[in-house]
Amino acid sequence: MIDTELEEFAAFAGLLADTSRAELRASLGEPVRADPKGDGSPVTAVDRAVEARLREMIAARYPDHGMVGEEHGAAAPDREWVWVLDPIDGTLPFLAGLPVFGTLIALLRGGAPLVGVIDMPATEQRWLGCRGRPSTMNGTPIRTRACPELSTALMSTSNPDFYGAADRPALERLKAATRWTVYGGSCLAYAQLAAGRIDLGMDVALDPYDYLALVPVIEGAGGVITDWRGAPLTLGSGDRVLAAGDPARHAEALEILAGD
Amino acid sequence: MIDTELEEFAAFAGLLADTSRAELRASLGEPVRADPKGDGSPVTAVDRAVEARLREMIAARYPDHGMVGEEHGAAAPDREWVWVLDPIDGTLPFLAGLPVFGTLIALLRGGAPLVGVIDMPATEQRWLGCRGRPSTMNGTPIRTRACPELSTALMSTSNPDFYGAADRPALERLKAATRWTVYGGSCLAYAQLAAGRIDLGMDVALDPYDYLALVPVIEGAGGVITDWRGAPLTLGSGDRVLAAGDPARHAEALEILAGD
Repeated sequence: MIDTELEEFAAFAGLLADTSRAELRASLGEPVRADPKGDGSPVTAVDRAVEARLREMIAARYPDHGMVGEEHGAAAPDREWVWVLDPIDGTLPFLAGLPVFGTLIALLRGGAPLVGVIDMPATEQRWLGCRGRPSTMNGTPIRTRACPELSTALMSTSNPDFYGAADRPALERLKAATRWTVYGGSCLAYAQLAAGRIDLGMDVALDPYDYLALVPVIEGAGGVITDWRGAPLTLGSGDRVLAAGDPARHAEALEILAGD
Repeated sequence: MIDTELEEFAAFAGLLADTSRAELRASLGEPVRADPKGDGSPVTAVDRAVEARLREMIAARYPDHGMVGEEHGAAAPDREWVWVLDPIDGTLPFLAGLPVFGTLIALLRGGAPLVGVIDMPATEQRWLGCRGRPSTMNGTPIRTRACPELSTALMSTSNPDFYGAADRPALERLKAATRWTVYGGSCLAYAQLAAGRIDLGMDVALDPYDYLALVPVIEGAGGVITDWRGAPLTLGSGDRVLAAGDPARHAEALEILAGD
């Protein structure tokens, strides 16, 4: 049965997160050397080592599954089941010692994210989403919160510099329609949206390993997360994400993004 | 002797931070209701309660000292010794569940900040600066790091929305001169600058309770923090702050801010 199988995969995702957390916690107190990648974003030896370790674990346990990771690329991404990994989402905060970075682990079936883990090593918090059951934070079920009016919403976006000239007006419209905007939250902002602390999240210039793990967590908590046109997120989605805790506000925000 | 007196005051600042941490940790897991203040920034009942408690403690122990706080205003700010309090620096991250908010406690003598505490309740980290001795994080001495070239610097600024049209060019110049910019760090970004994780910090639209506690921490770790013209920070300073771990980079950044 798919459910039993999913439960097993979700438990294994927890083992992967245990491993990444141990590695990342070991480097918490130490300044980390970073180098700019081709796109200018930073990468550290820790990123690469953690992802390599998780890929070994997956290959040993599920040799017929595919893998996609930020640092080591894609391996058999056309398989039925595909793991999508970001060892450190929020590498800049990681370098800076700001505890909003985390490990993202998603499991896709036929391109649809069915299991998602957001693990925060600095604060020892773990969000787990698994299609068909409620999302949890450290084992406790969580729910998004209602947001009766967009004008009172707390919105999050990670890095304003990611917005190009074409995307900035959409950001400004949504900021104008909401009350407060908090910056720099990385994956933790989406996790806290799932936990009912943030109403709206938007980002651009993301990669699939930045957002696929968020999908089961947010959906299993009652929220909605799609691209900016309202389409479901998969490996082939673009780089834009919109999430809302209250589904009615997601629909409203989509219209604002479209410029209506 | 002034030194003995300062040691005593620094120890008392630690007691204040113990109190604020206990109160803030008690509210960590719970969504908090916030209301916009006159300037649109959020305030919570927790802010007000923590500051009121700290003020009671100060008044009981040092009835001849003055006090300035974010939520309850100034009381005898012309005294020789004045405590400056921000119960929650980073109220938006606090609301959002992003663990970069902290309590700031400064003690001024004749307007000069001599003791500073940055206490991070979510991660249980405390930075202490005390004129005449090395700054510490959880009791361990810390140092800023050298930054031989500004072009490799990791810079921090908290909220890009705080920059008005007149200040934005200065921000853009400094971003162009450095390698990476991390957003949303609140007081923790300055604490991590003192600990050698961040090279440069700049902000606008700050109040004295947002920056005075940072001064002894950063100076006691080998860094420099001033306003944008290089003047020392005191109660009467403006709303702009520039900090650097490497004093030579501070001088260079000042010139860039001035538009030279």
